[in-house]
Amino acid sequence: MHRTMNAVVSAMVALCLVLAVCAPAGAQTDPLPSWNDGLAKQAILEFVRVTTDKASPKFVAPEARIAAFDQDGTTWVEQPMYTQVMFAFHQVGVMAEKDLEKILAVTHTGMTVEAFQAIVQDWIAKAKHPRFQRPFTELVYQPMLEVMQHLRASGYKTYFVTGGGQDFVRAYAEKVYGVPPEHVVGSAIDTKFGYDKSGKAILTKVPKVLLVDDKIGKPVGIHLMIGRRPVATFGNSSGDQQMLEYTQAGDGARLMMLVHHDDDKREYAYGAKSKVGTFPDTLMAEAQKRGWIVISMKNDWKRIFAFE
Amino acid sequence: MHRTMNAVVSAMVALCLVLAVCAPAGAQTDPLPSWNDGLAKQAILEFVRVTTDKASPKFVAPEARIAAFDQDGTTWVEQPMYTQVMFAFHQVGVMAEKDLEKILAVTHTGMTVEAFQAIVQDWIAKAKHPRFQRPFTELVYQPMLEVMQHLRASGYKTYFVTGGGQDFVRAYAEKVYGVPPEHVVGSAIDTKFGYDKSGKAILTKVPKVLLVDDKIGKPVGIHLMIGRRPVATFGNSSGDQQMLEYTQAGDGARLMMLVHHDDDKREYAYGAKSKVGTFPDTLMAEAQKRGWIVISMKNDWKRIFAFE
Repeated sequence: MHRTMNAVVSAMVALCLVLAVCAPAGAQTDPLPSWNDGLAKQAILEFVRVTTDKASPKFVAPEARIAAFDQDGTTWVEQPMYTQVMFAFHQVGVMAEKDLEKILAVTHTGMTVEAFQAIVQDWIAKAKHPRFQRPFTELVYQPMLEVMQHLRASGYKTYFVTGGGQDFVRAYAEKVYGVPPEHVVGSAIDTKFGYDKSGKAILTKVPKVLLVDDKIGKPVGIHLMIGRRPVATFGNSSGDQQMLEYTQAGDGARLMMLVHHDDDKREYAYGAKSKVGTFPDTLMAEAQKRGWIVISMKNDWKRIFAFE
Repeated sequence: MHRTMNAVVSAMVALCLVLAVCAPAGAQTDPLPSWNDGLAKQAILEFVRVTTDKASPKFVAPEARIAAFDQDGTTWVEQPMYTQVMFAFHQVGVMAEKDLEKILAVTHTGMTVEAFQAIVQDWIAKAKHPRFQRPFTELVYQPMLEVMQHLRASGYKTYFVTGGGQDFVRAYAEKVYGVPPEHVVGSAIDTKFGYDKSGKAILTKVPKVLLVDDKIGKPVGIHLMIGRRPVATFGNSSGDQQMLEYTQAGDGARLMMLVHHDDDKREYAYGAKSKVGTFPDTLMAEAQKRGWIVISMKNDWKRIFAFE
């Protein structure tokens, strides 16, 4: 009898090793392991489930599965100032906020699009965040990365819709977030077609604004560059309010979420008074009125960064 | 002996029916059946082969497989005038070319993006081409449709890069060509964010030009909306010259092709003197100098339209 039991247990252990079915199912299949259980996590999982289940009345056709993400403050750290502004200051060798417009023009124009891309990639490979002393590309919010990955694995296209410079974000978005250049909608300046000395066609960045992709400019940018209304949108500030409204105004299943920075221990806690990423009481009231889900970084996120 | 032979033949027939291997291999696997054998067809097949074969030195990574197509005159009929201009004239009830700018403004602005889309879709479902007496959407060049499908089946993303209105082309491109709205780059006007009477967020088309996607504007539009240089580009006129140059200026495998309208029996024959789709001697010289492949509609295309 004892020997038989041993044999049964041995067989079960062997089966477990082969099939890897013995760990709790949730631990292996949870697409959002960095999220604490709660309303926010459930809302995401439920939205993806009902929009990808053909039998669901909320099913969304694969071609219409567009999800939009703000970048600064929604998918990575935006304090103490936007990464792109740190880049611009570094390029001109100053750390003062005066003449920002001029500094942006000098650091972002007068070169080919490929030259600018190389400069950004070179800078971002070396630069470190003043508080965390890590590359900015490590200051990505792991829970949001999981949301992006879960959406893509479910047939969604994930777009950035950022107030930041389109070409700046494109320089690293594919490597850092898995978001290719053609899925980056951002503030854009013009380029000028011409030829280099060898006669090769080139595009040079020029200081003429084509799109300010912030606030009312975000839905405009979405229409210009995507041409479809997103069904899910993630933001973190007043700059994202209109794109959440625009998303919600469409028919069928919708998901609108706002990341709330309320964790000064692991990241930052800021709101109406911050220079970047303002989350005033009016935005919180709007969220409550319209049923948008506010993500508490403190309570909803088990960990914020992958390196934790 | 006879009975044995019969059995063998029967077995072979049965095998043929099951495996479907008995027809000439080419007839079943040719992705470009509407093309006559020739340099143009071979160039397309060879380009796709070498850029998708991992062992080839000309292999192109899947994410970089971007192909750009002009629309008017490259993938459908553009004579006797652009379809979009016919649309505009029809909407205002006149058939004169005076005040075209005003007519375009009146017919293309002052409504939501969805209302405009519905108007175009309604018109294009009913309107007929004056010569062919068929819907414009049937006047698609079948050989080019096969190129688009072959590229997509080989991991390429096919984009329209059209001088025509972006929102106009988006209204039918997915249905007619399999090109989704987010893959349509075109001339674009601005939109204005606001709310309808019920408080829903809307975008209204306004008469402010954001991008003239023609000539030097085509590479600019490609960078703005795609952010990657195409590896293959198809055009048919001087308006496409710069995007072919821009495509060619990239590294690695490249394919630049121009559709030449030289078939007045089945379609049209026109060149430098036409008001639309000009193909002057300077463009032919440029093509020869740079090694671009000129597609003769008369000689390279077995049939032009699917209905033939």
